[in-house]
Amino acid sequence: MSGVRRLEVTYLIRAAPADIESRAQALAIEQSVEMPLSAITEPAVIDTIVGRVEAIVPADAGRFAVTIGLAEATVGADAGQLLSMLFGNSSLHDDVELLDVALPAATAAAFGGPHHGIAGLRARLGVHGRALTATALKPQGLPAAALAGLARHFAEGGIDLIKDDHGIADQPAAPFAERVPRIAAAVRDAGARTGHTPLYVPNLSGDLDRMRTQVACARAAGVRAVMVAPMVAGFANVHTLIAENPDLLVVTHPALGGASRIAPPLLFGRLFRLIGADAVVYPNYGGRFGYTTVTCRALADAARAPWHGLAASLPVPAGGMTRERVPELLDFYGADVMLLIGGALLEARETLAAATADFVAAVHGHDYMG
Amino acid sequence: MSGVRRLEVTYLIRAAPADIESRAQALAIEQSVEMPLSAITEPAVIDTIVGRVEAIVPADAGRFAVTIGLAEATVGADAGQLLSMLFGNSSLHDDVELLDVALPAATAAAFGGPHHGIAGLRARLGVHGRALTATALKPQGLPAAALAGLARHFAEGGIDLIKDDHGIADQPAAPFAERVPRIAAAVRDAGARTGHTPLYVPNLSGDLDRMRTQVACARAAGVRAVMVAPMVAGFANVHTLIAENPDLLVVTHPALGGASRIAPPLLFGRLFRLIGADAVVYPNYGGRFGYTTVTCRALADAARAPWHGLAASLPVPAGGMTRERVPELLDFYGADVMLLIGGALLEARETLAAATADFVAAVHGHDYMG
Repeated sequence: MSGVRRLEVTYLIRAAPADIESRAQALAIEQSVEMPLSAITEPAVIDTIVGRVEAIVPADAGRFAVTIGLAEATVGADAGQLLSMLFGNSSLHDDVELLDVALPAATAAAFGGPHHGIAGLRARLGVHGRALTATALKPQGLPAAALAGLARHFAEGGIDLIKDDHGIADQPAAPFAERVPRIAAAVRDAGARTGHTPLYVPNLSGDLDRMRTQVACARAAGVRAVMVAPMVAGFANVHTLIAENPDLLVVTHPALGGASRIAPPLLFGRLFRLIGADAVVYPNYGGRFGYTTVTCRALADAARAPWHGLAASLPVPAGGMTRERVPELLDFYGADVMLLIGGALLEARETLAAATADFVAAVHGHDYMG
Repeated sequence: MSGVRRLEVTYLIRAAPADIESRAQALAIEQSVEMPLSAITEPAVIDTIVGRVEAIVPADAGRFAVTIGLAEATVGADAGQLLSMLFGNSSLHDDVELLDVALPAATAAAFGGPHHGIAGLRARLGVHGRALTATALKPQGLPAAALAGLARHFAEGGIDLIKDDHGIADQPAAPFAERVPRIAAAVRDAGARTGHTPLYVPNLSGDLDRMRTQVACARAAGVRAVMVAPMVAGFANVHTLIAENPDLLVVTHPALGGASRIAPPLLFGRLFRLIGADAVVYPNYGGRFGYTTVTCRALADAARAPWHGLAASLPVPAGGMTRERVPELLDFYGADVMLLIGGALLEARETLAAATADFVAAVHGHDYMG
């Protein structure tokens, strides 16, 4: 029925050519009304709510790209419901991968995307024309004072952004309420000496209430940036938290977001951006994870390319990166990227500040026109 | 280090025999400190926080079952952090499947499990010695009055439990605040006539605040049972909601819980039980989903078997079930099960109440000793 706004969702389905039409139709039903069409008594539901097979195109070996139109009215602006409609039941089917979604402009506007994005991050940090540098405080289990000590060295090395490791939650070893003010103060003190204060990004955890309490605690310590893992915290809760705190810079972590047959460029590049991630951390190619250059390129493109007027999210490739790879990574990603090196810097131990400074110099000195 | 309480987490890893030891060690680090051990300066962190490879056992073709001990102190009683520690980063590795976890008794007690479980569900419904019957209101897009009409027919047919389809959230076609009181009233009216009032279970959606508002709305309509999808809503939020509402019966939906290489018996049987699901809906074998009888048996066992003194969760196999399969399913599962038939009942259309009654009679009349 024309006049119905639809999300155009593309799945990769493994099927024999003779079966793909019926399989596609079954998927369209599974992701909408979940019942036999013969049992639907209202014509309006069949016309406007039942998923509609829009296209079936041969893809890679043995698979088809199937595009299903899903009524915008079934999603609204509920980020959890968006995930349910895109992949709720079909995540339980072994032969389906969620590949991509094209949104009606009204849906993109209703969710809103990042409040700051790349431009806002750069403005907050005062960094333009080069890539950004980042690192992580770890390991979990360190007391707050020790983490603050590491942060001070990183800051002395001139890094742009220091985040908590995602495994650092609110454990007794370094409770949020103790850790965040200490680290923020250490970073500020170092910044006062060097003239460059890094952005400290604490990791949120727990339910929505707890995350709100943590945000308030961070604010009280002068911190206006946070990290959160949307697949753990729940899409709707992250979306709400971002809406309530428009001045917060938000970095997402990919925890629990893998191995679920949602294409990484869609999940981390597009969906995390849609609910408001200013910067998205993800596993880079050639590190500890198996993502390819093609995946990483597509992910970065999805995060940065124009999309319904939403602010761009800053790609943050991570996961086993090293100082030696800086030139290669900057040639690959260009200047709109934040390089995150954690463990490889921490290996420097007592020369941490110098190792950080060396990393920072490589990023600052790169030829971005090359 | 002895004296440290650990979660014993088992993963299936694809690796060559020559590589499995180093791969297992890498996994233990990835799921704990996420950094080179050489960079850890505190012996206490190495002794108590770094993941410990406890066992490596050959499993199915080309895979090994690797058990990692993770410090309880890194999890506490935060359900989101539990998921992060179990599978946060490793979900991003293609060669790993999360298979199972053994908890310290203190962890099980801290989470608490179901408030009601099978015994509480039976007591609320007044049903003992036979399996329970359930169905779903759908399709999404129907107005509240039409959904209430379906509920009335189901109730007249004598069904035990009527739940919203998980695709029915808070859409304009049938807003929660309008739908739930209408359906609850229809069910109550029918129950007054037949002498048997089914349990109505509305579906929650949105962030934690919205779910709380929906719970309050349901309570005002006399409803004290809800359905929620923990992988969409976020584990910590569901756990909190359950803690705040100890009198609510909670049914979980598996949406978004598939295809993520977390073994279904663990995710739906154990982890959903741990955070408090009284009843767990999952895709049954031989329906629209590919789960095997072995998976379903293991899942039902995980939900029902004694486990740290936590109440048992009621298995609710679903997803393309039919009236004809009732005897087979009851022979397979026994009496502590709730059979959920949705679409196949709705196909009866104007004879919905009679079809429901036929389903109900098959469950009531089954020989559970057979």
